[in-house]
Amino acid sequence: MTITSFYPTPRTLMGPGPSDVSPRVLSALGRPTIGHLDPEFVQMMDEIKSLLQYAFQTKNELTMAVSAPGSAGMETCFVNLVEPGEKVIVCVNGVFGSRMVENIQRLGAHAIVINDEWGTPVDVNKVKQAFKDNSDVKFLAFVHAETSTGVLSDAKALCAIAQENSALSIVDAVTSLGGVELKVDDWGIDAIYSGSQKCLSCVPGISPISFSAKAVEKLTSRKSKVPSWFLDLSLVMGYWGGTGKRSYHHTAPVNSLYALHESLVMLQDEGLENAWQRHKNQHLKLKAGLEKLGIAFVVEEQYRLPQLNTVLIPQGVDDAAVRQTLLNEYNLEIGAGLGGFAGKAWRIGLMGYAARTENVTLCLAALADVLVTE
Amino acid sequence: MTITSFYPTPRTLMGPGPSDVSPRVLSALGRPTIGHLDPEFVQMMDEIKSLLQYAFQTKNELTMAVSAPGSAGMETCFVNLVEPGEKVIVCVNGVFGSRMVENIQRLGAHAIVINDEWGTPVDVNKVKQAFKDNSDVKFLAFVHAETSTGVLSDAKALCAIAQENSALSIVDAVTSLGGVELKVDDWGIDAIYSGSQKCLSCVPGISPISFSAKAVEKLTSRKSKVPSWFLDLSLVMGYWGGTGKRSYHHTAPVNSLYALHESLVMLQDEGLENAWQRHKNQHLKLKAGLEKLGIAFVVEEQYRLPQLNTVLIPQGVDDAAVRQTLLNEYNLEIGAGLGGFAGKAWRIGLMGYAARTENVTLCLAALADVLVTE
Repeated sequence: MTITSFYPTPRTLMGPGPSDVSPRVLSALGRPTIGHLDPEFVQMMDEIKSLLQYAFQTKNELTMAVSAPGSAGMETCFVNLVEPGEKVIVCVNGVFGSRMVENIQRLGAHAIVINDEWGTPVDVNKVKQAFKDNSDVKFLAFVHAETSTGVLSDAKALCAIAQENSALSIVDAVTSLGGVELKVDDWGIDAIYSGSQKCLSCVPGISPISFSAKAVEKLTSRKSKVPSWFLDLSLVMGYWGGTGKRSYHHTAPVNSLYALHESLVMLQDEGLENAWQRHKNQHLKLKAGLEKLGIAFVVEEQYRLPQLNTVLIPQGVDDAAVRQTLLNEYNLEIGAGLGGFAGKAWRIGLMGYAARTENVTLCLAALADVLVTE
Repeated sequence: MTITSFYPTPRTLMGPGPSDVSPRVLSALGRPTIGHLDPEFVQMMDEIKSLLQYAFQTKNELTMAVSAPGSAGMETCFVNLVEPGEKVIVCVNGVFGSRMVENIQRLGAHAIVINDEWGTPVDVNKVKQAFKDNSDVKFLAFVHAETSTGVLSDAKALCAIAQENSALSIVDAVTSLGGVELKVDDWGIDAIYSGSQKCLSCVPGISPISFSAKAVEKLTSRKSKVPSWFLDLSLVMGYWGGTGKRSYHHTAPVNSLYALHESLVMLQDEGLENAWQRHKNQHLKLKAGLEKLGIAFVVEEQYRLPQLNTVLIPQGVDDAAVRQTLLNEYNLEIGAGLGGFAGKAWRIGLMGYAARTENVTLCLAALADVLVTE
């Protein structure tokens, strides 16, 4: 059987990511591939570093893009910092906190798990208590914006607790970067990772990361080699490093980095605070519309992520049928619930380029149509 | 300082990869992003699997694309198969064999290293002897086409030795896939990885892999969890798996997979044997032209890779100056030597879309110009 070229039906992406990608970013993506050691490319990598420092609000020297999706960004943080037998307090209030636990356990480290109910933020007091109950804790790990539930946790307060206890903080910012306030240096975040395909509105496949000086010190004073060769930052930095000759480590995903560069230029041009405000404004529009449709939010108002709206599926409505009709007839993708929320909630994303009036308007009108037909 | 959009100068890529990317592939890359669980996308993934089975010449059910570059494909093979304390005979005749050793050691496994001189193939007899000298060897690992030296090793003979000794073979086909004969099932290869950016002429960032039934059995009978969560095939296969419902593992690099799909459709349309022959033909043209210029090959004729020509830099010629002139004045990239070949050899790639008459003609004419000026 002969297989032919693939032409995707254009969709409006309002799920938990990938989000709508700007035509500017797609256009950058398709530019001619050049060598990964070409001086022009190397200069572009330096620009990505500066732009990421702006997006993360950090001066961290070790700020770069991992050549793989956010899951690999998570693994990069854990695998470089956490050594066998070390203790990590890890906060679980959704899928991605659980994934952190998996990472820690596979490294032979000790995860002290703090559970909070799905749909609620990390409880700061439980974290304080966990530090009191456990000695020699090296790390506090948590998810800033839980993609599985649409909940924002208080990263600033949590990092302060880590600092008071001389622990390093490891923060999942996959869904928060570019969508809500995030200040790596001001808040004292030590290791952070994000994803290209959420509020940066770039194509999926790249994971921006940043390590503080303290985190770099932990990395360079390791007793054992980093178990992953591909993710070993002591090697990767030879390629991304700011000074001197670039040494080959692996072949960078050249075109995906063109796209990341363009998405970060767009963020720079808009201004970070303006981007946060835009997400907020569109969220408020969506919220008003959903309330008119009688659709309620899962998460309490003060913990809601503007960029990821988890809402209860109205009683008697067929989850899969509605999402299928939205996709097939409106070319509109919204997200299903994950884990305990499967079949009970939808996740409506307003991330990056999707946080626009036309998206909110389409989503509300399409939902209104489909729910009436149901 | 405001950073602006990046417009790379179009280059002709005739180094060790990334190679020239076809306009068809770049066009596919820039198509609208859709969701990674969209039924259209999932169907396209099934097609990628079929196309990769054709490219690898295998019926292996576990055939897929790792969401990261070839280095991660290498790590995927080792991390899923090799457990702590197990013995691996690993053949080193260039950079990428050494990288295999790194992978094995970081897993706490035992690497029995067989060294062959750079520029020569793996010595089959040494491998036979190593199996005689060591009991309970679980794996034989080697590089089919060494990108650092331009040497082809006898994968068929090596895999036969592994089979005779009840060991599994792990094969690096980063530079061989699509460029020279490679028959996974006929040769009895158990685990193989490649890269998107070499003879497939796709953008860099994706690593096709394939595991035999025996390799899958080794994976499923592991005593310990795979140390990497991101690369754990028992989880990844829930997403790439051929049957039933796709379960979310990580967000696939959607657009890069469009590009891989298109490059594999092009390979299917050309026919695998025709692609091998095209690389051979262009290599012969390049060889004839280089000989006229008095440029000699590093590798003996019968072991030369048609797609990667390692040649000695003529006496008295300034390596860096020539490559810089080619790049700046002809927009032509050729590769520097690696390791022991740094400053002594060039690597001229004829990979995938770069294996065309116009590329060979340009390269020879530009080299002739520049060497006269030198």
